[in-house]
Amino acid sequence: MRISLGELAIRYGCDLDGDPDTAIDGVSSLTEAIPGKLSFLANPKLTPQLKATRASAVVLRAEDAQHAPCAALLADNPYATFARIAQELHPPPPVSPGIHAAAVVHETAHVTPTAEISAGAYIGERAVIGEHAYVGPGAVVGPACRLGDHSRLLANVTLVRAVAIGQRCLIHPGAVLGSDGFGNAMSEDGWVKVPQIGGVRIGDDVEIGANTTIDCGTLGDTIIEEGVRIDNLCHFAHNVRIGAHTAIAAQTGFAGSAIVGKRCLFAGQSGSVGHITICDDAIISGKGMITKSITKPGVYASSFPSEPAKKWNRLVANVRRIDTLFERVKALEKNDT
Amino acid sequence: MRISLGELAIRYGCDLDGDPDTAIDGVSSLTEAIPGKLSFLANPKLTPQLKATRASAVVLRAEDAQHAPCAALLADNPYATFARIAQELHPPPPVSPGIHAAAVVHETAHVTPTAEISAGAYIGERAVIGEHAYVGPGAVVGPACRLGDHSRLLANVTLVRAVAIGQRCLIHPGAVLGSDGFGNAMSEDGWVKVPQIGGVRIGDDVEIGANTTIDCGTLGDTIIEEGVRIDNLCHFAHNVRIGAHTAIAAQTGFAGSAIVGKRCLFAGQSGSVGHITICDDAIISGKGMITKSITKPGVYASSFPSEPAKKWNRLVANVRRIDTLFERVKALEKNDT
Amino acid sequence: MRISLGELAIRYGCDLDGDPDTAIDGVSSLTEAIPGKLSFLANPKLTPQLKATRASAVVLRAEDAQHAPCAALLADNPYATFARIAQELHPPPPVSPGIHAAAVVHETAHVTPTAEISAGAYIGERAVIGEHAYVGPGAVVGPACRLGDHSRLLANVTLVRAVAIGQRCLIHPGAVLGSDGFGNAMSEDGWVKVPQIGGVRIGDDVEIGANTTIDCGTLGDTIIEEGVRIDNLCHFAHNVRIGAHTAIAAQTGFAGSAIVGKRCLFAGQSGSVGHITICDDAIISGKGMITKSITKPGVYASSFPSEPAKKWNRLVANVRRIDTLFERVKALEKNDT
Repeated sequence: MRISLGELAIRYGCDLDGDPDTAIDGVSSLTEAIPGKLSFLANPKLTPQLKATRASAVVLRAEDAQHAPCAALLADNPYATFARIAQELHPPPPVSPGIHAAAVVHETAHVTPTAEISAGAYIGERAVIGEHAYVGPGAVVGPACRLGDHSRLLANVTLVRAVAIGQRCLIHPGAVLGSDGFGNAMSEDGWVKVPQIGGVRIGDDVEIGANTTIDCGTLGDTIIEEGVRIDNLCHFAHNVRIGAHTAIAAQTGFAGSAIVGKRCLFAGQSGSVGHITICDDAIISGKGMITKSITKPGVYASSFPSEPAKKWNRLVANVRRIDTLFERVKALEKNDT
Repeated sequence: MRISLGELAIRYGCDLDGDPDTAIDGVSSLTEAIPGKLSFLANPKLTPQLKATRASAVVLRAEDAQHAPCAALLADNPYATFARIAQELHPPPPVSPGIHAAAVVHETAHVTPTAEISAGAYIGERAVIGEHAYVGPGAVVGPACRLGDHSRLLANVTLVRAVAIGQRCLIHPGAVLGSDGFGNAMSEDGWVKVPQIGGVRIGDDVEIGANTTIDCGTLGDTIIEEGVRIDNLCHFAHNVRIGAHTAIAAQTGFAGSAIVGKRCLFAGQSGSVGHITICDDAIISGKGMITKSITKPGVYASSFPSEPAKKWNRLVANVRRIDTLFERVKALEKNDT
Repeated sequence: MRISLGELAIRYGCDLDGDPDTAIDGVSSLTEAIPGKLSFLANPKLTPQLKATRASAVVLRAEDAQHAPCAALLADNPYATFARIAQELHPPPPVSPGIHAAAVVHETAHVTPTAEISAGAYIGERAVIGEHAYVGPGAVVGPACRLGDHSRLLANVTLVRAVAIGQRCLIHPGAVLGSDGFGNAMSEDGWVKVPQIGGVRIGDDVEIGANTTIDCGTLGDTIIEEGVRIDNLCHFAHNVRIGAHTAIAAQTGFAGSAIVGKRCLFAGQSGSVGHITICDDAIISGKGMITKSITKPGVYASSFPSEPAKKWNRLVANVRRIDTLFERVKALEKNDT
């Protein structure tokens, strides 16, 4: 894929500072770029890298253009504009319509003629695969699941049952959607399984990371709204609801019926108890644990940074006897009066 | 599936307060129920929802029956009774005996005629698949593994080698049982792998969540006793032993040779070091870290709840200089005497 | 496999204290060994177990030989020597060259004649499978991936795209390598995906645990150097680099562009933010969170051990009002002068 800077400027609404005939054939970082590549500057701290880049062009804000040693596409949001151009220059592999001879499609399933079903994939009863959708090798689409137009299930993904996925979604390998929620009632004979009969609904333009798991609802559905971005190895329990455009980094987990607002950010290894509500625009820092509802946007944290173990162990010992300190101060205050 | 309230009362040993001919065709929550559905009340706080429900019947304790606007099945443990009835009304999909043409079964494996082997499944050398057992699409049963009667391996599960699973177990998609334990000996040439030659034994009535991993033992077996419930993305290292009826929520992990008692509860993202023993009836709260043996039943915790970052950062800064506080108080006490 | 002690002594460079004709047919722990088995003593605390063992021979240091009730192989590093002998007595299953009839290999892929491709495996465009390499049932090797000589991908592993694996590597079931990094640019229309066009490079003699995920680089590669050992359910974000012979226990995660040195040890459930550098020989304890670069070898920690909840909750309450303590001490000091 080759495209001229002039064409890119028109398509992405940028002013161009440079030769419109310059051909671009890919993207790269400022430091690794070679001629023919497009790079970007979003963080002014990287201006020294900008000055030294060998890229043929960069996307940046107008005020940073003076430092570019090459052509520049001017954009208010250089990172987003760069991402859009990068998508054009490095598109996902094309979908090759058809069902591979080594795939198995149940007779009651409906696969549109423009969809691609790869070798070793299995499409179950009453499943529906949309236009231009892709099902990768070894992926399993269980009964009554729906995959929207232009959505992709990569290799070894499993949709268990009653999972409805919107359009233009991307589900990475090994992810499991629609597994039973963790519902058990204690009895004199041990745990009794509570049947999990709800489904999973995934909005449009959602991306779900490798080996992430999203359980079905116990009675209603587990819901991931449009535009949500989920990283690898995350867990979503039954009846969780994640608001539109929220982004969730790796190894984060949500217990049952946690309701999360729109445009929230969860850093890695964070988590939330169940049956709480988190408002829009909350940001949870790494390893953070949410134990009650959040009603105000802002940043929330609950973890300590690592220190040399000797220092940390002393800190822990001090924290553990902090109650003695309260008592001693109280005694001092008594004498002080 | 439709069944009368009178029949349910007889089968589940409940007193019935209402018309025994009322037909029930499914279960629902109090708030979402429509006529024909059965719901339940276990937590008296939800009495307002009970009063407003449109369900045809509810399972509840005798003392709560006065608030039911519909028929009532009276039970000492309404949640467990509801779960049992829900299982009857919403049974798992039936097992269709036979080996799919697109499955591969090794010539030395034994698959009982009543078992179902799905498309894309692989049954390896000397594996044994019990009566009415189910092996889902893409699931792999490695050499010398045994799957007990009525047990189910869902899609893309892997039993690596020497994994013995009891009866009526349910293993969710992507789970891996029998992977090598993490055993390495440091040498001058780097790590030397310690062969992991033990197996995995899973008792009857165990449920294991999606993408959970259970390693084989180094020499003996890794053991999960009967009735244990394990959620998604949990990790069990070599030679761990989990006692009967313990329940373990998502993303929890156990290091090698950790021995856990019966009826313990582990909340999400908790973990335990290896080579320790946890007694029966211990409860570990979310993100809790067990660093030494627990000998007394009860609740154990070690994590902080999230706070607004500004407040939290001040707290962290204060904790880090807590030693200065001890010194200052000591100095004050010296002067005080 | 049976081998004489005399032969083992010669092959592994040990002095032998006992009958060289003693036949050894396997390894075992000190407590579970029966005649014919070889065990080892590395930790002198287990000397009572050594004295009571029924093993035919043990590997141990010369100074511990006096306590052995059986033959002894003397070694400076008994655990590593035992591991090497155990590998010989319990070798991995042999590779049976050939492509199973139920495997699918793309016409542009290259599979060496000595490699084994199992049932249900898929080898994609331009992929290369090395000499004596093994691809397990249901494993997927995507476009432009390379698997080195003698390396093994176990069941249901996925190599997504542009993943290069060295020689003698072992990748456990369900692991995903080469999934897209988590790169998103916020725009007025929500997240814009930043295409992830880098690859993954895995050095020789690397072991990767079950259901672990390693993302491709955004532009350059994500790199795992030779001899690294990774446990189950770990996460490696885009452009992470892990130095040679580092070992990483289960459920640990690294955010984007984290650079980790050689011979580091990460205990379970630990994690690191991105864009930092950790020097060689750093040790991170369980649940530890690294938030900034580490420049000195040593042990680092940041988590609290669990305590009875009542005690812990009081501790948390005290920590949360620690600022009041600082104020009170300040007031006392003021009066004290």
